[in-house]
Amino acid sequence: MSEPVICGISYADFIIRVEEFHGYRSPGILLGGFMLDAALQDVGTTPYLNVVTETVVCLPDAVQLLTPCTVGNGFLQIFDWGKFALTAYDRMTLSGTRVWLNYDSLSRYGLIREWFERSDRTNEKPPFEELAQEILQAGRQLICYRPVRLHRALKDTQPVPTGRCSKCGEFYPLRHGSACPSCQGNAYYDYQTAGSQSARHDE
Amino acid sequence: MSEPVICGISYADFIIRVEEFHGYRSPGILLGGFMLDAALQDVGTTPYLNVVTETVVCLPDAVQLLTPCTVGNGFLQIFDWGKFALTAYDRMTLSGTRVWLNYDSLSRYGLIREWFERSDRTNEKPPFEELAQEILQAGRQLICYRPVRLHRALKDTQPVPTGRCSKCGEFYPLRHGSACPSCQGNAYYDYQTAGSQSARHDE
Repeated sequence: MSEPVICGISYADFIIRVEEFHGYRSPGILLGGFMLDAALQDVGTTPYLNVVTETVVCLPDAVQLLTPCTVGNGFLQIFDWGKFALTAYDRMTLSGTRVWLNYDSLSRYGLIREWFERSDRTNEKPPFEELAQEILQAGRQLICYRPVRLHRALKDTQPVPTGRCSKCGEFYPLRHGSACPSCQGNAYYDYQTAGSQSARHDE
Repeated sequence: MSEPVICGISYADFIIRVEEFHGYRSPGILLGGFMLDAALQDVGTTPYLNVVTETVVCLPDAVQLLTPCTVGNGFLQIFDWGKFALTAYDRMTLSGTRVWLNYDSLSRYGLIREWFERSDRTNEKPPFEELAQEILQAGRQLICYRPVRLHRALKDTQPVPTGRCSKCGEFYPLRHGSACPSCQGNAYYDYQTAGSQSARHDE
């Protein structure tokens, strides 16, 4: 088998990049690479590429490794739906391609099926190299893809009015209401008050 | 002024990495670098570093550039609150440090204030080099930070029961209800039916 190429990068180089960015070799990112490869080929060349992933797991890192789209630059949107699917599209035309797992094909690929069905469990490490070989052999048989049109642009393009929160004094988008999300009861933290009530800042 | 260092990386190298990953030089990521620098110093060395950002804009990319935490590996969580703040914490102890903008200091830094107040508008490019110089000079005067304790771990550590959606046939976490989020009316796309109703997959 000749060296596989994923979105224009050799498999060997891709795996190194995955380890550097994601922290370890990930079957989900390898599979995501094949999904992106199909989607990008279908969408064609565009300077206005955006991607949506329908899970927070693995796929966002495949996108950030293989495309110019990142969370922080707003060209990658993430829905926390737990679905192993993504859509690449042109943000000017809103036309694109959605790709998802071809679950019916998994019966032919025992390791992949085992990995996919176990991927939501912790502390179970699949044998990466064997699994990767199966993914590389199966390739696009593992995925389905279909052209889509987005209902609307997913990134705010209009100015977002902001103001200071009357409780914490920090800026927030006023669309959240009369206080920021944290002061409305969604805070994920408590301040530790040992020593001083006041925030530290270096003068 | 000696070469500034941000999370152990020289300013020059940092800006190159920002351009490569984020696509352009970003004042928000530079400021995020200072915020992370303060938070990581306060949290101290830990193999269990997690980060939360309270905005999808810029800060997630600072985290992914400067720490091992990414969206896809689950060590970076993102709340879409529009608040320019982040928390670095140890996921074993749930203790950490929250960092946010010291808005009261901005009156002394005209370019930064102008950038921050305009950052939600499109098509207005601030003069990056001048702005960056002001950020580098101001440094930690721009931020406040304070120890926090998280209410709970933010990443699922238990298996998530999944099943096939009765409508689309794709797998999803059953906690969403009797159909996947997309089939419950949240789909962001319509399939284009030109030619064939069926999905393509390469055999």
